[in-house]
Amino acid sequence: MKCRSCREPAVIELRRHNAGFCAPCFLTYCRNQVVRAVEEHKMIARGERVLVAVSGGKDSLALWDLLLDLGYQADGLYIGLGIGGYSEPSGEYTRSFAEARGVTLVEVDLPGDFGYDIRSGAAADHRVPCSACGLSKRHIFDRAAVEGGYDVVATGHNLDDEAAVLFGNLLHWDVAYLARQRPVLPERDGFPRKVKPLVRLAEREMAAYCVLRGIDYQVEECPMSAGNRHLGYKDALNAVEERSPGTKAAFYHGFLEHGANLGAEIGEREREGLRPCSNCGAPTVGEICAFCKLVRRAGGNPNRRIPVSAGPVSAGPVSAGPVSAGPVSTGPVPAGPVPAGPVSAGPVSAGPVSAGPVSAGPVSAGPVSAGPVPAGPVSAGPVPADAALADAALATPAPGAKETAK
Amino acid sequence: MKCRSCREPAVIELRRHNAGFCAPCFLTYCRNQVVRAVEEHKMIARGERVLVAVSGGKDSLALWDLLLDLGYQADGLYIGLGIGGYSEPSGEYTRSFAEARGVTLVEVDLPGDFGYDIRSGAAADHRVPCSACGLSKRHIFDRAAVEGGYDVVATGHNLDDEAAVLFGNLLHWDVAYLARQRPVLPERDGFPRKVKPLVRLAEREMAAYCVLRGIDYQVEECPMSAGNRHLGYKDALNAVEERSPGTKAAFYHGFLEHGANLGAEIGEREREGLRPCSNCGAPTVGEICAFCKLVRRAGGNPNRRIPVSAGPVSAGPVSAGPVSAGPVSTGPVPAGPVPAGPVSAGPVSAGPVSAGPVSAGPVSAGPVSAGPVPAGPVSAGPVPADAALADAALATPAPGAKETAK
Repeated sequence: MKCRSCREPAVIELRRHNAGFCAPCFLTYCRNQVVRAVEEHKMIARGERVLVAVSGGKDSLALWDLLLDLGYQADGLYIGLGIGGYSEPSGEYTRSFAEARGVTLVEVDLPGDFGYDIRSGAAADHRVPCSACGLSKRHIFDRAAVEGGYDVVATGHNLDDEAAVLFGNLLHWDVAYLARQRPVLPERDGFPRKVKPLVRLAEREMAAYCVLRGIDYQVEECPMSAGNRHLGYKDALNAVEERSPGTKAAFYHGFLEHGANLGAEIGEREREGLRPCSNCGAPTVGEICAFCKLVRRAGGNPNRRIPVSAGPVSAGPVSAGPVSAGPVSTGPVPAGPVPAGPVSAGPVSAGPVSAGPVSAGPVSAGPVSAGPVPAGPVSAGPVPADAALADAALATPAPGAKETAK
Repeated sequence: MKCRSCREPAVIELRRHNAGFCAPCFLTYCRNQVVRAVEEHKMIARGERVLVAVSGGKDSLALWDLLLDLGYQADGLYIGLGIGGYSEPSGEYTRSFAEARGVTLVEVDLPGDFGYDIRSGAAADHRVPCSACGLSKRHIFDRAAVEGGYDVVATGHNLDDEAAVLFGNLLHWDVAYLARQRPVLPERDGFPRKVKPLVRLAEREMAAYCVLRGIDYQVEECPMSAGNRHLGYKDALNAVEERSPGTKAAFYHGFLEHGANLGAEIGEREREGLRPCSNCGAPTVGEICAFCKLVRRAGGNPNRRIPVSAGPVSAGPVSAGPVSAGPVSTGPVPAGPVPAGPVSAGPVSAGPVSAGPVSAGPVSAGPVSAGPVPAGPVSAGPVPADAALADAALATPAPGAKETAK
């Protein structure tokens, strides 16, 4: 199979596009999909300050890398969840990424800063762990963005995540959640704007992106997500996608086109009842927000300030030049410079070619063998399908998988 | 496990209801679900003449049996599709059923009456077989109902069928099809009223019903449906249902409640353009309807009259007494009389108990061992999951599984 763009040998096959790509053209493809999503849904204006919700998994690190590469002013926020054996390496991957690029990483540690972890918070608040996790992350990302003066929070939800959440919400006809499932949630009522720039990219594409860019990431699935319904929805959609490549993308984008009004009136009603939490000021329908309740029940302190420094408030969109104006090097990325200009620039040797194929998802991958593969969990050959779910699992609320907060 | 109703040993477990039933109480459960669907959606009034679309599979024969048992005036219409090795036994099961009960069966034979079969029709009209089949069946059922003066056409679509079709239509956001996917389509524009009384019953429940009632049916899957997308959608939903019993029912009934307006305006626009086919008079958007086009292209004759005798036109709903007024025996059914009254009437011995468990679907069945099992394909022990799909497969249009005509 040859690269669709430059006719060099392909390293990855994308069945839903009926196309193969070489390594440089695949990276260009990923960037172009992000540019298209950002523009189509007016996610981020030039010059705005972006806070990237980073978990240490492939999606959020790829997102951060892509936004930096595209020239956005993007800081990261990592939340240590206190999940033994899982949170430590996740934090290390995130710190390594930030240090290698010299970019700002804000860190919050649930046990150290707020006095609880996911297990104790879930138990105290009578929630399943994924629910306590999603609630905590959403609250802290929102608060950090507001306190730090960020214009927008970006999360690493990919096409597979969004399709699976959509499937779950349709299975149960959770119309209030359907109304909120958009690639952009505008700023309002004390919530910052939230965007999902990876909605045009599949999970295995994000795994391949990290491998080709030499990004080490947490490949383990969160140990607390076992049996999570969200993963079952992904499996079911993967089985359909396997028979009919492209179905997932048609499903999600068709929803954006045709299902937009589902539950809109319910979403509106819910928003009308919001007021500031009497403890932390976050928007809530009750006297005290769900986060403050959970942390107090778990014996922690919900009032810890998040160590973000409020940057200059952007004065509207600032043109930083065309997005694809050439390679934007943001630090010592292991893979060599990747051409961001026209793909027809010819074959680019990206370094030593690894020996084995990388198959990062349930869709049978074409030959992936490209660029220097870093030491670490992704270097050991095929990326297991389960590992590719790590990010999503981390972020999934339960039991109904209604929305995720990466 | 004990029967939820009478505490006798259960022969079938319904995980989505978290319940087991003995044989007589299971049959009562099936009847009650049909009564509830018919009443809830105002499908059939007492005294109306019903034409049952019968394929020889479990769903349509169970439907016919249930409607007769509930006291409805229900004739059957069987269409011989000319599918070698498949259509002959399907017709035989149907004829045996009708003869044993002394009820009216109208028969149409595509090759003998219209001069084509599914294979030649599909080839001539450049359709996949499932599409040619669905088109032919819908047209002939509609025409027979109109010519025979029937008030309503009843089809054997069960909960699994409807959930799978809904899933397919949502995956592709076929809003025009979503607008038409209701348990009742009212009579209008030359189409008869069409109803689906089995929408509250699952596929494996229909297989168990037939076994317990001693109904022999075609268990083979239609040989022309291999690779049909609809079956893939069923598999995907079955995987979800396996993890969370009840999801399929919540999905379908939630759609009826919340998705009712999806595409409604498109359905309305489409109906506005209907006019009579210049050849046969059926409603169509073109000069000639799709059926007449297909038959002519296949070298057949679309004008053959269907041998239905127009019965008296019903003068509105006639009360035939309460539905569950006791056993309605409609002929020599192998299983003994089944109590249709209160389930608490106590254990009823339904005859010799067969040796082996009957597992008729992907959900792990509890012990099913009840009633006389007839000679024939269902007598040989477990009913294979694939066989349970025979009816639906026969009826499924392709490629998108947008609606089925059983």
